[in-house]
Amino acid sequence: MPNAPVISEHRWNHLTAPELRALAARDAVVLLPVGSTEQHGAHLPTGVDDFLAAEVCRRAAALADPVPVVVAPSVWCGLAEHHMPFGGTLTLSLPTLHALLRDVCGSVLRAGFRRILLVNGHGGNVTALKALVDELTSELSAPLAVTSYFTVGRQALADVLETQDHLMHACEGETSMSLAAFPALVREQELPEAVGPVISLQSEDTSPVYRSVPFDTVTANGTAGDARGATAAKGERMLDGCARALSDLLRAGIWPPSEDR
Amino acid sequence: MPNAPVISEHRWNHLTAPELRALAARDAVVLLPVGSTEQHGAHLPTGVDDFLAAEVCRRAAALADPVPVVVAPSVWCGLAEHHMPFGGTLTLSLPTLHALLRDVCGSVLRAGFRRILLVNGHGGNVTALKALVDELTSELSAPLAVTSYFTVGRQALADVLETQDHLMHACEGETSMSLAAFPALVREQELPEAVGPVISLQSEDTSPVYRSVPFDTVTANGTAGDARGATAAKGERMLDGCARALSDLLRAGIWPPSEDR
Amino acid sequence: MPNAPVISEHRWNHLTAPELRALAARDAVVLLPVGSTEQHGAHLPTGVDDFLAAEVCRRAAALADPVPVVVAPSVWCGLAEHHMPFGGTLTLSLPTLHALLRDVCGSVLRAGFRRILLVNGHGGNVTALKALVDELTSELSAPLAVTSYFTVGRQALADVLETQDHLMHACEGETSMSLAAFPALVREQELPEAVGPVISLQSEDTSPVYRSVPFDTVTANGTAGDARGATAAKGERMLDGCARALSDLLRAGIWPPSEDR
Amino acid sequence: MPNAPVISEHRWNHLTAPELRALAARDAVVLLPVGSTEQHGAHLPTGVDDFLAAEVCRRAAALADPVPVVVAPSVWCGLAEHHMPFGGTLTLSLPTLHALLRDVCGSVLRAGFRRILLVNGHGGNVTALKALVDELTSELSAPLAVTSYFTVGRQALADVLETQDHLMHACEGETSMSLAAFPALVREQELPEAVGPVISLQSEDTSPVYRSVPFDTVTANGTAGDARGATAAKGERMLDGCARALSDLLRAGIWPPSEDR
Amino acid sequence: MPNAPVISEHRWNHLTAPELRALAARDAVVLLPVGSTEQHGAHLPTGVDDFLAAEVCRRAAALADPVPVVVAPSVWCGLAEHHMPFGGTLTLSLPTLHALLRDVCGSVLRAGFRRILLVNGHGGNVTALKALVDELTSELSAPLAVTSYFTVGRQALADVLETQDHLMHACEGETSMSLAAFPALVREQELPEAVGPVISLQSEDTSPVYRSVPFDTVTANGTAGDARGATAAKGERMLDGCARALSDLLRAGIWPPSEDR
Amino acid sequence: MPNAPVISEHRWNHLTAPELRALAARDAVVLLPVGSTEQHGAHLPTGVDDFLAAEVCRRAAALADPVPVVVAPSVWCGLAEHHMPFGGTLTLSLPTLHALLRDVCGSVLRAGFRRILLVNGHGGNVTALKALVDELTSELSAPLAVTSYFTVGRQALADVLETQDHLMHACEGETSMSLAAFPALVREQELPEAVGPVISLQSEDTSPVYRSVPFDTVTANGTAGDARGATAAKGERMLDGCARALSDLLRAGIWPPSEDR
Repeated sequence: MPNAPVISEHRWNHLTAPELRALAARDAVVLLPVGSTEQHGAHLPTGVDDFLAAEVCRRAAALADPVPVVVAPSVWCGLAEHHMPFGGTLTLSLPTLHALLRDVCGSVLRAGFRRILLVNGHGGNVTALKALVDELTSELSAPLAVTSYFTVGRQALADVLETQDHLMHACEGETSMSLAAFPALVREQELPEAVGPVISLQSEDTSPVYRSVPFDTVTANGTAGDARGATAAKGERMLDGCARALSDLLRAGIWPPSEDR
Repeated sequence: MPNAPVISEHRWNHLTAPELRALAARDAVVLLPVGSTEQHGAHLPTGVDDFLAAEVCRRAAALADPVPVVVAPSVWCGLAEHHMPFGGTLTLSLPTLHALLRDVCGSVLRAGFRRILLVNGHGGNVTALKALVDELTSELSAPLAVTSYFTVGRQALADVLETQDHLMHACEGETSMSLAAFPALVREQELPEAVGPVISLQSEDTSPVYRSVPFDTVTANGTAGDARGATAAKGERMLDGCARALSDLLRAGIWPPSEDR
Repeated sequence: MPNAPVISEHRWNHLTAPELRALAARDAVVLLPVGSTEQHGAHLPTGVDDFLAAEVCRRAAALADPVPVVVAPSVWCGLAEHHMPFGGTLTLSLPTLHALLRDVCGSVLRAGFRRILLVNGHGGNVTALKALVDELTSELSAPLAVTSYFTVGRQALADVLETQDHLMHACEGETSMSLAAFPALVREQELPEAVGPVISLQSEDTSPVYRSVPFDTVTANGTAGDARGATAAKGERMLDGCARALSDLLRAGIWPPSEDR
Repeated sequence: MPNAPVISEHRWNHLTAPELRALAARDAVVLLPVGSTEQHGAHLPTGVDDFLAAEVCRRAAALADPVPVVVAPSVWCGLAEHHMPFGGTLTLSLPTLHALLRDVCGSVLRAGFRRILLVNGHGGNVTALKALVDELTSELSAPLAVTSYFTVGRQALADVLETQDHLMHACEGETSMSLAAFPALVREQELPEAVGPVISLQSEDTSPVYRSVPFDTVTANGTAGDARGATAAKGERMLDGCARALSDLLRAGIWPPSEDR
Repeated sequence: MPNAPVISEHRWNHLTAPELRALAARDAVVLLPVGSTEQHGAHLPTGVDDFLAAEVCRRAAALADPVPVVVAPSVWCGLAEHHMPFGGTLTLSLPTLHALLRDVCGSVLRAGFRRILLVNGHGGNVTALKALVDELTSELSAPLAVTSYFTVGRQALADVLETQDHLMHACEGETSMSLAAFPALVREQELPEAVGPVISLQSEDTSPVYRSVPFDTVTANGTAGDARGATAAKGERMLDGCARALSDLLRAGIWPPSEDR
Repeated sequence: MPNAPVISEHRWNHLTAPELRALAARDAVVLLPVGSTEQHGAHLPTGVDDFLAAEVCRRAAALADPVPVVVAPSVWCGLAEHHMPFGGTLTLSLPTLHALLRDVCGSVLRAGFRRILLVNGHGGNVTALKALVDELTSELSAPLAVTSYFTVGRQALADVLETQDHLMHACEGETSMSLAAFPALVREQELPEAVGPVISLQSEDTSPVYRSVPFDTVTANGTAGDARGATAAKGERMLDGCARALSDLLRAGIWPPSEDR
């Protein structure tokens, strides 16, 4: 049964066209991870936000039974202009991200799926993705939805984190999850220096004014929060918690029947 | 001194070009109100979001001494696709709002000003304006900033409101401020029916998933919140409170010296 | 009857959504004022072109009975690149004006109206608006139309003006109408110097070659024509004359029945 | 001297790159004909507007001595949406014409020329070309200019025409010039029916409102004016007159020294 | 019978609208020549690529009986950025060429034709036109096709050429065909120097990596290949051979019935 | 030394920002894989083109010593409109691919790298990527280059293939390489039916006319070529051969010193 393990992985690009047609016919939900490829201090690889969003999606898909779920390839480049001064960072303009999501989501719809949930992994994408979901819902006449894995898993993260209560950047949370999911990519020898200022979640920022703040004015080493106490065990609990929260959401249903067409 | 009352009004389009050149030389802050022209139930005019954002800006400008302030004409059309089913509503696409703000802010910069604060008055614009501030800060190489009058005045509103603790839509808050600022435009005979469901501020929404929700699935009469207890006195206190909060912010300074170039 | 005075004002943003739906059902004409916010010498505010276009529209709407008329909020930013050297000026690119009018007119059509007349107040917009009306008529499959208040009121202006026979810029005509409509915004102490060269109406320019002429090569003080003899009485007659000409036009009918669908 | 006759033709695409470099070094004026390919009744070919604009340019270039002149290949497709119902018609959208002129004029500037005059041959392009000259002057930082051969040659045409005093469409004027310049392409057997209503020059239209009028509501056979009395002799006089008027203009100078950079 | 010679020429802009409607009704194929206006050494005019593509199309149309064929005006500006250093060159950006072809082909379809073949004459356009045919086939829902005259006539060219076996640039082939088709435009006194390096056809280039190579790094005098042995007789044979190959193709049919709708 | 294995993998998103800054300082070449996510019959996953392009890049990077190489994350969505009828396929429009590559390559340049080689894995991208390399070389003022792994490895593939001499689609070649690189994703039970018509490499297609051919008119089961004899051993030899050819190319140098700035 060579297909079984593949189908259990729920990954669009691991599936064949006939298998995807069958999933569309079952009205599967398509998760589209949206990450970023950007500096994460000296201890984490630049792909962290992309890797973690995709990891949570794959775990959630495996837990979502009986809801059929497909995980699309991840959009690994987001809005990271504020990280450009550190080097190693790739960024899109807002119109390019708009065009890319329009074409990818449009293709998903043409492939017969109707339910698309963007699952974001990068703080800098949060507001833009909400604005683009508004825009694309109208352009594509399809009820897109968006969450961030750290929003749907807000409580699960807070339950584990010791030095913070929400995700920051290259912090205890992201570093622990990296140690759980791709330990070889964490430069552990750099961890003793992996500490920076505390920052709030953009989506929970209570400062009345929003400005685009270059991240090098926030932290000299590219880290926000304190990664020194990161462990793989914490990371595993966080990944599992976020995935469970997302799969619960999928089972509970995101789209009311009246809007689902 | 025929100019004096005009200058005290701080309105760009009331000022002459020589006066504006002088204000640019003094490094005045330019407030750009961004509203919407959209349905607000049967009791309020469609211009409410636009009118209130501009009103708060003008009041704040008058209170901001010694900070010189100019209030640009207001962007009276925003993102209101979700209100289109009610009629009477005008909306822009995201790329059009992007282009419009690029050209207007670019002109303000070419006129010699360096500090621009967008002051929003419409919930549906909140996330898009943050995303566009990111984008335009990069495109124009200028440190734009954005707030909403109901964000900077969050506490001032909560202190007055009785049936809610934040602004909704055509609610106790918006109706009271309309009664204070432009009473002739409030259809008071419609107030007994001006009640709808309670909704959260989009920026404070704690639901993990964001979707674009057509407003007619939220409320049949276009109102969210309860406007029946609205009074001009409450409205005056709220407008004054929001304006004071905004002027305090302007005096405290929005841009750190290091980013202000 | 608090609504009555509002409805008599015919302003879209003063009206409620139900009232606008009713006007659309009556096939009301929508007037969209298009102005500019640009230098007008040392004696006039930068908003003149915007204010006067909107003023003529509101007066015409009040006179148009039995034709139902709605006046949309005015597009206060037009094409004013040639005035940028003076400061105090805001301008759009042609593609941005195109996008803005597409979205606003598209919204008006979606709100149920079928007849849209752009009423321009700025010489620099004249040719672009004709070109955009051609383009948008095709894009929106709707018979847009455009005039300028100084074109429809050409004769009414000539009957009053003493130092010129058509509108120039910050001239006897614009200054008189400003004195009539918003006297507090005219810097009367600057009037003795408010004189510049005579220029022709762009739309009546008989020079065989058209170039984009920076306005500071035409006049050092930003004024064309002679505003020294401006009076509020003249201005009132001109505003009234332009409004009557426009209302006559609305009553006479702009769209032939065969094209009106 | 094989080059001599070619250079006397002044046509960009007949010249070699070294010859064009030399002309750029002499600060030659580049004429860019802009036409249309559209229905012209049953008696004229669809290329008339394109052919005549180019013909006048070539004749003017030959007469312009001592002003060096190059005639670029003609933009044979313009704005002809209003002629589409007749078939045989090609049209651009306004943004496409904008992009095309931006790239062509930008290339001319990069080739070392500084003075570009668009010479239009199609009524439907008049207002758009003025608007685009404004826009491109700013975009390219170069002082573009535009005329129409029937504007610069207004008097020369009026002196010859018997049934009209300005160009219409497939009329006495266009038909006579076609008989003079490319007689084989005139279907003379169709001339007895080549008559339609009198229309005004768009640029001289005194009707206060501008709408985009489908040409098939103006004339059933695609002709405006009366071509029945067209002769090659008249056409030759008109072409010569327009060319002389244009060459006089080139010699008189279009760009003042202060703006010519 | 003044029409006969015109119709035999098959040129869109020589035909009248009624004639074109009749050809559309007969399901004529529309050939759209796409050339370039760019440096071709010191011996050839800049229009060569445009002239030759159009010449082959007109000859093929005359030979294609019984297939009805219309030759559209040629797109005389293509992608020639790599020739810009030589001067005398005009180029479009890829998005502008895309927009231009979209509008022209869209107009041809609206005029009632269904079969459009782009016939290219410039090496630098080859890959872009294939990519744009893919894109426009989807955008316009119409089965566009593209060839280059030197591809369809590959063998005919090789049979005649002595110093090369395919077209290069301003080479034996292009110069011979120019001597055949427009001898007055060839600067014969420059021929003794008209020799440059041998280059491959881009579409047959076997080098594994593609880069955009500035043509002045390939050849100092703008010529590739050896034009010294060019003759009109060779050119006539090549033009005839390419035209015959193209007309054979038209007769053989390009679109299978199943895709032709 | 936990970093060593990571650095040996040369993957941008596995590296940290400081490591990437160091590689930029060493003038490393950046390989950008460009694939597609599209139907590949019933036996191969939709990600094949993406996976194989990235696999060859990673292997080549490991073999390129002493040339420092970084492999960017792969562009997993390309131009696959012709595969849409099969379902399971994602595609971009040409303008979106253009925008995406502009932003990604622009970011790579801003990160300090100067040498970018796009390594394509999808036949449908070949011509578009050449056209976009031309365009982006000009837009970004940087010497981009492009190859396809099956072009640089043309001979290596031919040496191994038994039923064909070049890559087709879901064929002996792609299936063998899939068996070598990700065997669990190959549905071996489907192999007996995995045979379709022989097609040529688009880049080597000798048919004179190019059209956009819907792939379902070519093959009913989505396969071109004969995959029945595919083996992992063949695949390993092909992947190794392509990677060696690419690494040889990197060592030989792609950019001449004169153009490398």
